[in-house]
Amino acid sequence: MSNQLNICDISKHITFFENLIGKENTKSDTMHKLAYSYDATREEREPDIVLFPRNEQDISDILKYCNTNKIPIVPRGAGSGFTGGSIVAKGGIVLALEKYMNKILELDEKNLIVRVQPGVINKDLQNFVESHGLFYPPDPASENQSTIGGNVSENAGGMRAAKYGITKDYVMAIRAVLPNGDIIRAGKKTIKDVAGYNIAGILIASEGTLAVISEITLKLIAKPKHKRSAMGIFDTIENAMNAVYKTMASGVTPVAMEFLDNLSIRAVEQKFHKGLPMEAGAILITEVDGNLQEDIEYQLKLIESKFKENGCVEFRVAKDSKEGEDLWFARRNVSQSISIYGKKKLNEDITVPRAKLPELLAQIDEVSKKYGFKIPCFGHTGDGNVHTNVMVEDLKDLEKGHEAITEIFKIAVNLEGTLSGEHGIGLAKAPFMNLAFNDSEMNLFRQIKKAFDPNNILNPGKMAL
Amino acid sequence: MSNQLNICDISKHITFFENLIGKENTKSDTMHKLAYSYDATREEREPDIVLFPRNEQDISDILKYCNTNKIPIVPRGAGSGFTGGSIVAKGGIVLALEKYMNKILELDEKNLIVRVQPGVINKDLQNFVESHGLFYPPDPASENQSTIGGNVSENAGGMRAAKYGITKDYVMAIRAVLPNGDIIRAGKKTIKDVAGYNIAGILIASEGTLAVISEITLKLIAKPKHKRSAMGIFDTIENAMNAVYKTMASGVTPVAMEFLDNLSIRAVEQKFHKGLPMEAGAILITEVDGNLQEDIEYQLKLIESKFKENGCVEFRVAKDSKEGEDLWFARRNVSQSISIYGKKKLNEDITVPRAKLPELLAQIDEVSKKYGFKIPCFGHTGDGNVHTNVMVEDLKDLEKGHEAITEIFKIAVNLEGTLSGEHGIGLAKAPFMNLAFNDSEMNLFRQIKKAFDPNNILNPGKMAL
Repeated sequence: MSNQLNICDISKHITFFENLIGKENTKSDTMHKLAYSYDATREEREPDIVLFPRNEQDISDILKYCNTNKIPIVPRGAGSGFTGGSIVAKGGIVLALEKYMNKILELDEKNLIVRVQPGVINKDLQNFVESHGLFYPPDPASENQSTIGGNVSENAGGMRAAKYGITKDYVMAIRAVLPNGDIIRAGKKTIKDVAGYNIAGILIASEGTLAVISEITLKLIAKPKHKRSAMGIFDTIENAMNAVYKTMASGVTPVAMEFLDNLSIRAVEQKFHKGLPMEAGAILITEVDGNLQEDIEYQLKLIESKFKENGCVEFRVAKDSKEGEDLWFARRNVSQSISIYGKKKLNEDITVPRAKLPELLAQIDEVSKKYGFKIPCFGHTGDGNVHTNVMVEDLKDLEKGHEAITEIFKIAVNLEGTLSGEHGIGLAKAPFMNLAFNDSEMNLFRQIKKAFDPNNILNPGKMAL
Repeated sequence: MSNQLNICDISKHITFFENLIGKENTKSDTMHKLAYSYDATREEREPDIVLFPRNEQDISDILKYCNTNKIPIVPRGAGSGFTGGSIVAKGGIVLALEKYMNKILELDEKNLIVRVQPGVINKDLQNFVESHGLFYPPDPASENQSTIGGNVSENAGGMRAAKYGITKDYVMAIRAVLPNGDIIRAGKKTIKDVAGYNIAGILIASEGTLAVISEITLKLIAKPKHKRSAMGIFDTIENAMNAVYKTMASGVTPVAMEFLDNLSIRAVEQKFHKGLPMEAGAILITEVDGNLQEDIEYQLKLIESKFKENGCVEFRVAKDSKEGEDLWFARRNVSQSISIYGKKKLNEDITVPRAKLPELLAQIDEVSKKYGFKIPCFGHTGDGNVHTNVMVEDLKDLEKGHEAITEIFKIAVNLEGTLSGEHGIGLAKAPFMNLAFNDSEMNLFRQIKKAFDPNNILNPGKMAL
């Protein structure tokens, strides 16, 4: 990890950057330093300089200078990440890509492809392609703020992953700038491409530690004509978790298969009074889509039968999109609602193979009892991704809260799961990397980091590297 | 590239390996050296030693020894590749994985996952999972011979890629042995996993140059209940190519969308007398699948209308699977049939974005006229992957044939395509890497190679590295 920059050097660097990209794009005032000091982790770390590159060539020139002068630099989209991936570990530069590098460059309807700059906001892209009858499925909860560059850097997921996969499943090609300023292209507009190493593949989820992504080519699909939502109410969480994996294994692939446990249901109901089943052990909310109404009916019937075989006490199908939105209300508002359980929410996004969900939830319940914290859980059960929230009421118990989180990480890893399904590692989960990876694996990560970034200027201190 | 091993050293190495894995698994006789000297390129290069590891630990011990002694070693599955990926560049060891490392280790029906050793044959895996109502879509033409390890190493495609994607879309996790003997795990049994660099992603298509894959965890899907085939006959190749991309952009995703050009049709007809339309500019053969008959009808109707809008003069739908097989006969037998056009077939598998197919085929026709070679084309147009075959009648024209191939590579790259959609680079396409990649990109490949394999023992000389 690099040290904070020397003050004399900083003014020299600022002069260089002002000459390179203009004063208006080189900021080191308190306001800018503060504005670019945090992300959704609420951890604050101020950079020394914030730069707004106007184009790929600016990024190249900036990186070349940083590489020569060994200045740490952190690429940043919207700063909406949950693990500190886009904040500096210890001073240096934030490279802010949302100001200029935010254009949709090309919609290639003939090939079902869109080419964008990294600063395009996810939801803007979704809306744009949908206005052309096309569909970009990855929908992280941050879709209204987060950028495609950030999504690619963290390999963002979302609710539709159960059927449509995650960001990596849509990235066809990437242009990126290496720390030495070299501009590289990786991948093609083609489904098949096996020439050379899969550089695009390793840039995805690399959290800005290997290269700065300057352009992204994404696959689109035709927008399905119909969709319908349904909700299943279960007496016990175990029944609900069994229903999830048995439904997914039955040959139906719902777009989404989300769940709320009892604590989550109660929190939403307490806040919004929507008539949710307060006594239910869990609810599952699902959506199916397709081009034919017959297909929608077929899928819903199959889901209903699998749910009922697994203890679903009530199955509600939305008649129309209005009713559908009502069913989804609880899921969309759960994250803010659970704050009733404590001042500090330690939220993680562990993921296990779906069939391990019943065991995972049972073991989390043990952790809750052992430490005395409420741990409401909800999330993307269709892909095994559970948002666990250790609620700390009294801030003096924060350390104990972190112990509980550590146990939960261990449980996930023991159940063949992962530390993070979609939030990334960044700063927040760096201390836990050794739970998931052995020395050989960590060493390989370091060698790869070195292959791209021998001077360790790009986002140093992240991912325990 | 390493030199052939010194004869005195070889006998020392053989003794070491005999002690390690047994005489029966350490071979250096003429028969074995010959048997492991070639792949489907028909290029012959003899190894000095052929080793048959019994398990992952054997692989680790063997690699550790090779690393210490700087002995080149090439992992090999069935040797059915088209680019020399599994043959030695210049002596050394072939690590033959098909003898022992050929077990299906686990079928996890609850999570729709199968775990296999690298030597399992693709078709055996398909048959096995289908007997459980599940489906492994990647179906390279070599499916009856090629191994999953080979498929992963080359990122094999196949006919179903248009709908179901390619090998990389099914790889969830990999266990592999690094050149230093370290055993690593990459990826998880979970759809979402963003912890650490995507090592599995970069091992796919790395042609055995980075690590030896010792175990593969694959995603399965439920087997669709119904499928149906159809054929469209077109007067001109241009019409057919327009029909391909316009159909694929219309919201239907056929499992396969294959084509034969006029030369290919004539070759099959001449050989098999099946009543194919000899005067057609091209035929498209397609298959759709789904869980509902209504969906099958819907898809076929959409395809028919898009085909007819684009000059399809006849559209035949197979009534049953027998008629379906008849429609596919031409496609399945085209590769062997075109040998009537010349002694030597220089076949490549360039790929372009689908909408560039009309231009690609027109430009290949120009190359055919310029050089005087017949160039029958067929292949996976649904994903833009065209098998071009420069047919050289007189072997003294071979060099001219290679010039024609070089032009075709340039055309593909200029149309935003790739040198290889599914066959890989290996030895055969290594000289063309500089057409597709600039110095920065090649340099990055070399740095990555070094990060994994600092002594360059793994499959040296491939991919122009």
